[in-house]
Amino acid sequence: MFRTAELGRQVPKADFDALADPLRIEMLELQQTLRQCPFPVVLVFAGVDGAGKGESMNLLNEWMDPRWIANHAYGPSSDEERERPEFWRYWRDLPANGQIGLFLSSWYSAPMLDHVHGRIDDAGFEARLGRIAAFEKCLADDGAMILKFWMHLGKKAQKQRLKSLEKDPEEAWRVTARDWANFEIYDQFIASAERLIMETSHGHAPWTLVEGVDPRYRALTVLTSLRDTARRHIKTQEARRRMTADLKKAAHQATPRSRRTQARESGRPEGDVLARQPSVLDALDMTQSVSKADYAQEFRHQRARLARLFRQWKARGRSVVLVFEGQDAAGKGGAIRRLTSALDARDRRVVPVAAPSDEEKAHHYLWRFWRHLSRAGRLTVFDRSWYGRVLVERVEGYATPEEWRRAFAEINEFEDQLVEHGTVLVKYWLHITQDEQLARFNARAEIPYKSWKLTEEDWRNREKWDLYEEAVTDMVEQTSTRRAPWTLIEGNSKRFARIKVIRTLADRLEDELAALSKAEKKADKKGDKNSG
Amino acid sequence: MFRTAELGRQVPKADFDALADPLRIEMLELQQTLRQCPFPVVLVFAGVDGAGKGESMNLLNEWMDPRWIANHAYGPSSDEERERPEFWRYWRDLPANGQIGLFLSSWYSAPMLDHVHGRIDDAGFEARLGRIAAFEKCLADDGAMILKFWMHLGKKAQKQRLKSLEKDPEEAWRVTARDWANFEIYDQFIASAERLIMETSHGHAPWTLVEGVDPRYRALTVLTSLRDTARRHIKTQEARRRMTADLKKAAHQATPRSRRTQARESGRPEGDVLARQPSVLDALDMTQSVSKADYAQEFRHQRARLARLFRQWKARGRSVVLVFEGQDAAGKGGAIRRLTSALDARDRRVVPVAAPSDEEKAHHYLWRFWRHLSRAGRLTVFDRSWYGRVLVERVEGYATPEEWRRAFAEINEFEDQLVEHGTVLVKYWLHITQDEQLARFNARAEIPYKSWKLTEEDWRNREKWDLYEEAVTDMVEQTSTRRAPWTLIEGNSKRFARIKVIRTLADRLEDELAALSKAEKKADKKGDKNSG
Repeated sequence: MFRTAELGRQVPKADFDALADPLRIEMLELQQTLRQCPFPVVLVFAGVDGAGKGESMNLLNEWMDPRWIANHAYGPSSDEERERPEFWRYWRDLPANGQIGLFLSSWYSAPMLDHVHGRIDDAGFEARLGRIAAFEKCLADDGAMILKFWMHLGKKAQKQRLKSLEKDPEEAWRVTARDWANFEIYDQFIASAERLIMETSHGHAPWTLVEGVDPRYRALTVLTSLRDTARRHIKTQEARRRMTADLKKAAHQATPRSRRTQARESGRPEGDVLARQPSVLDALDMTQSVSKADYAQEFRHQRARLARLFRQWKARGRSVVLVFEGQDAAGKGGAIRRLTSALDARDRRVVPVAAPSDEEKAHHYLWRFWRHLSRAGRLTVFDRSWYGRVLVERVEGYATPEEWRRAFAEINEFEDQLVEHGTVLVKYWLHITQDEQLARFNARAEIPYKSWKLTEEDWRNREKWDLYEEAVTDMVEQTSTRRAPWTLIEGNSKRFARIKVIRTLADRLEDELAALSKAEKKADKKGDKNSG
Repeated sequence: MFRTAELGRQVPKADFDALADPLRIEMLELQQTLRQCPFPVVLVFAGVDGAGKGESMNLLNEWMDPRWIANHAYGPSSDEERERPEFWRYWRDLPANGQIGLFLSSWYSAPMLDHVHGRIDDAGFEARLGRIAAFEKCLADDGAMILKFWMHLGKKAQKQRLKSLEKDPEEAWRVTARDWANFEIYDQFIASAERLIMETSHGHAPWTLVEGVDPRYRALTVLTSLRDTARRHIKTQEARRRMTADLKKAAHQATPRSRRTQARESGRPEGDVLARQPSVLDALDMTQSVSKADYAQEFRHQRARLARLFRQWKARGRSVVLVFEGQDAAGKGGAIRRLTSALDARDRRVVPVAAPSDEEKAHHYLWRFWRHLSRAGRLTVFDRSWYGRVLVERVEGYATPEEWRRAFAEINEFEDQLVEHGTVLVKYWLHITQDEQLARFNARAEIPYKSWKLTEEDWRNREKWDLYEEAVTDMVEQTSTRRAPWTLIEGNSKRFARIKVIRTLADRLEDELAALSKAEKKADKKGDKNSG
């Protein structure tokens, strides 16, 4: 694969100088155009040491307006980073729309080194690369332009470079012990690199191989492929936006009708039969309730239990993420307050999901949730969440069918990273019946200090009950995974709901703790065997 | 001091219930008003364990719309926090305008505990409290509403509370060993608390003592004083804004004239004499330059030296913050690129200071700079900085004289925290003469790929040369402290400037490292004495 990047390609100074000035202007104009584009540019520079990764980044900063370029290079993770999924630090640093982010090795570094040094086998390597591919696809689907440069140096060239630097007293500082150590494993490095490029080069995030011997050749290759890719990307994105806009316009003109209604109105003989089929929500027993006396006792018991279990969980440095979704007036707020009252204020955070800030609007819709993930040993409650994408955004037509359908996979991937990181994730859908909601709306309207909670929008949403119910059904179907299942709460009785919410979490923690200690015992046994 | 909070004050249920509903409505309306106000609300809850700190925070979340309330409680610092000045974590969490931030103990916790446990003496305690006072004043001056509640319980009441909780199997979990340990040192705690309140209760950030025995009394006190303070604050801020607006309008109508011009035009006999006095910038020898050959050699030498010294500095877990200010075309960008070329991309970050985002606009002007402070072992370059407040904002009249004069003290306090934290802070003013600037503007206009750097604004700024020179003079005079001095760079010769910039930093690091090892040797000697 790298043969093509070991041809000693060079660009004579005269040729370069002749090209440089017009190219600089093109790059500057291009950047001005990009600044107006509603998508970010993500450039990754990886490859062999000394092949010009850093130099290429510096060149871009020098040839373009650095105010709209962010450079990112990563050392060892901080504990705040280790306490969150691996990709948290990269999500944190993603450029906003109109901005260019330059990433040195970044998400490719750890998997690469782990594989080269044999800390993970080929299968493990593939898995890590798969996660990277999903990450880049998620950004690209959202419109991001992603271009990756693999800077290459042949083994000979690499050795020559290190030696000549060491000879010069004023340049010797550039060569560290690490450089020679890396040179020793050059061949394994190349082997891993080949697999890495094969696995992660896609149309939406291609790798460009760059021969790094000659700075002028290198610069010209990076700059021109950036220019050409960007121009193509601007065109295709523009077309895509027009298409999306038309779709949304059409969607708004047509009054959306639920599958159930459509089936009923279809006139086809099977229509009524299908329309009458129960949804996962219809299957709930909404009559369940708890007496006031039982509630008082059971609540205090479950709260004490949760308090005890969470402390054990925290002691193991694990986190909890809770998602609360439900119809208006389903009782999310009350349930959240009851649950959090079991925890020390230092250990919990409630994130009420309101309208995004402009910084948030200028990023992928998951960005604002990544940024709110808490450190180890904390419980974070999302009062409404990333599921807005497949609920309100779907029903109101803010997201196109393509967008919200895609979101199911994006959300599953996101949650999978949380769970894999050791976080307990519990997702509650608080369900109430249409009649109960009406009763609560009327009650709110009457109680002065509650009427603020009741808005015109609530009444409008109520008219779309069927559409929401359909969206919820699809959501549960698509995102209730084994590792991150949905918990449906029968919410007509607030007392019943509050106890089920708190008990569900306590049960989950109990199971997880049991599983952990079981795994540890097993490990100890094994350890004894090996030592014995 | 606490006698008044040990009277066993109570509110009968009937009275409370009668007051509750109207009060809830008032609180909700108040919050809606506050959301429209261009200032944040900071509420601190501190005091004796079990006196209702957390309960009061929960109450506010329950009685108001939690979407506009952020709750903050702090455990031990993460390493990312320890690697920055103590107040970084609090700046990070400050509420935006229109939002309410509830802080549990927060910045009062550490100084309090350090004093109670004798880790710092009274003088040390005073110093810490002084820093807190400065922090709160800085926010209050910017318009923030700050209200602090000290929740109190008498020693007897405290003991009763712990015992009764322990008796109840379902509540016992609330009582930890820490609670009893704290009870043991109740008296020292109260002694420190008294001093703390005396030192940090100011008109702009008063403490309200709240007797915590009776939940109803406690709730009523907190809610009503919040309500009344907020109403007063809204009025005064409104008046203040009107006044500021008038001032700015007046400033814009009058064409600003420098002191020098005013003196000259004053007609008074001493006018010309004063006008002719040199400024600190006039005193610079702008003729200094370096030959191309000397530059090549000296630059490579200084870069190697800086690379070596920075690695030692990084090895000690210390950081570097560099500030670059200067007239347009003074050569900041070029100097920054040359300097950073000595460092590994992982170790450095350049923060180009452009227009603030809306999140940044909704905070104190220093917030965006606090948020960019890097971790230990990193070098952060601010290409333009917080000094914009006393330069462009002053000259263009975006900041009132009161605001930019105040900024000198705020900036000194901010930088003092950086230096005290062990960061090396170097501030460069790149200076060029008016003629040199003109030459560079014209050159830029001719070179196509540089002309983008030249804007109408540059020419406008140029007309205000005297005003900027005056602003710079004041800035150097006011903020060139012993711990954070300004380095003035004679910039007419780019080569001379680039070498002086890089050499200055290398020298600083050399001195700091020498000082460190000297201090360590001393410590060792002392250690030997003590052990011997």
